[in-house]
Amino acid sequence: MIEQPATDNRQLGTIYGIGVGPGDPKLLTLQAVEVLRGVTAVLAPRSADDRESLALAIARPHLPVSCTVLEATFPMISDPAVLARAWEEAALLLLARAEQGEATAFLTLGDAMLYSTWGYLLRALVRLCPQAPLVTIPGITAMSACAAAMGTPLAEGRAPLLVWPDTPPAEISALLANAPNLVFMKAARHLRSLAVQTARVGADAVAVRRCSLPDQAMTRELTAWADDPDYFTTVLVHSAPRKEDEP
Amino acid sequence: MIEQPATDNRQLGTIYGIGVGPGDPKLLTLQAVEVLRGVTAVLAPRSADDRESLALAIARPHLPVSCTVLEATFPMISDPAVLARAWEEAALLLLARAEQGEATAFLTLGDAMLYSTWGYLLRALVRLCPQAPLVTIPGITAMSACAAAMGTPLAEGRAPLLVWPDTPPAEISALLANAPNLVFMKAARHLRSLAVQTARVGADAVAVRRCSLPDQAMTRELTAWADDPDYFTTVLVHSAPRKEDEP
Repeated sequence: MIEQPATDNRQLGTIYGIGVGPGDPKLLTLQAVEVLRGVTAVLAPRSADDRESLALAIARPHLPVSCTVLEATFPMISDPAVLARAWEEAALLLLARAEQGEATAFLTLGDAMLYSTWGYLLRALVRLCPQAPLVTIPGITAMSACAAAMGTPLAEGRAPLLVWPDTPPAEISALLANAPNLVFMKAARHLRSLAVQTARVGADAVAVRRCSLPDQAMTRELTAWADDPDYFTTVLVHSAPRKEDEP
Repeated sequence: MIEQPATDNRQLGTIYGIGVGPGDPKLLTLQAVEVLRGVTAVLAPRSADDRESLALAIARPHLPVSCTVLEATFPMISDPAVLARAWEEAALLLLARAEQGEATAFLTLGDAMLYSTWGYLLRALVRLCPQAPLVTIPGITAMSACAAAMGTPLAEGRAPLLVWPDTPPAEISALLANAPNLVFMKAARHLRSLAVQTARVGADAVAVRRCSLPDQAMTRELTAWADDPDYFTTVLVHSAPRKEDEP
């Protein structure tokens, strides 16, 4: 029914895409740990050559001692040709191992299917080798960890949730009309704008950064961090305070 | 900065809300397993008195042998007074144990902060005992597991994601104008309507049910299940086929 890469090929090793969660190593799933213990190589993304991969740090305690660690740099730019080449190079690294019958894994922060580089790599893998066995292991999203840390639901009852990964629009009131619960991901550069806009419409807003990591922090004063941006910043907005006891 | 229940109270035991994931016991996090191993009682929700709790079945292998299993029925109705009483009764059960210094856990499917009964219970707990130490453990969402099973991202790049837990509107084109990626949760009763609407706008739609469970199934023929509804049904919609290689 669903077009899916074959997963019963005996010659090729399986390539896993693993969501390792938002940062706390304890937010790995049992399934992720089981897979990590059986791979011969992992590929971890980095945003620049001089940064260590957080995804790799989370997974490392579970890797076999003989496991090869490959690191690939996915530049934070939007040039499609440069990015396509980066995905293709990463895919070829993993396919070379799969052809030897080895199981390998690509590590990605949060969930593997939500604003993750795994989606692009997955398409490159399917294009280069349609018969490769590809398996995705879901992970804990940053927004779930943020809501848990705050003690406030992302969304409840019949109210929709809108997840916004980009620059907020000039007026968020249109978004709130559709969904009273908003999540702005990678929002560090938009804290001033979000502070102004949420204040204007009387919405509740909290910024959380480095969620589930030892230096996790949160604030309702969104502008407090405007001059000190951190990549791992999420802003959760609710259009109105929830009513006590309302199911 | 954030109003949060105190978590350093030495007299009261901690009450945990644990997201146990969508069904596969391997989708529990290491953190959830660690907490489950240390509790003296768990409370598991059921939708009707004669149904076994799936959340309990997922957690059970990790519970101490001496752990007490409490089950509470949360009727699937919308009468606020009946529901408020159910949350309050559940809260009192857990608080009675916390007052004895015992650590307890409430189990909930998926993530504890996304359309979960834990949100309601959390508010009842805060109201009845503001100083109770309350900790939420995030879980894998059904939508993440569905996307992993399908091998298709929930959302990528700069495109928003809208999660819709209720009856779809008469025209989903308005939703798609805001967000090209839609997730309809608990969509079993809306399969016919979603089939018609997604066909009309040329959107890609896949229904997944009992995701990550042994009898998981998926189909692009949404009407195929219209007369055989299953509670755990998710429909993932994308407004247009993604372009190959587009980062």
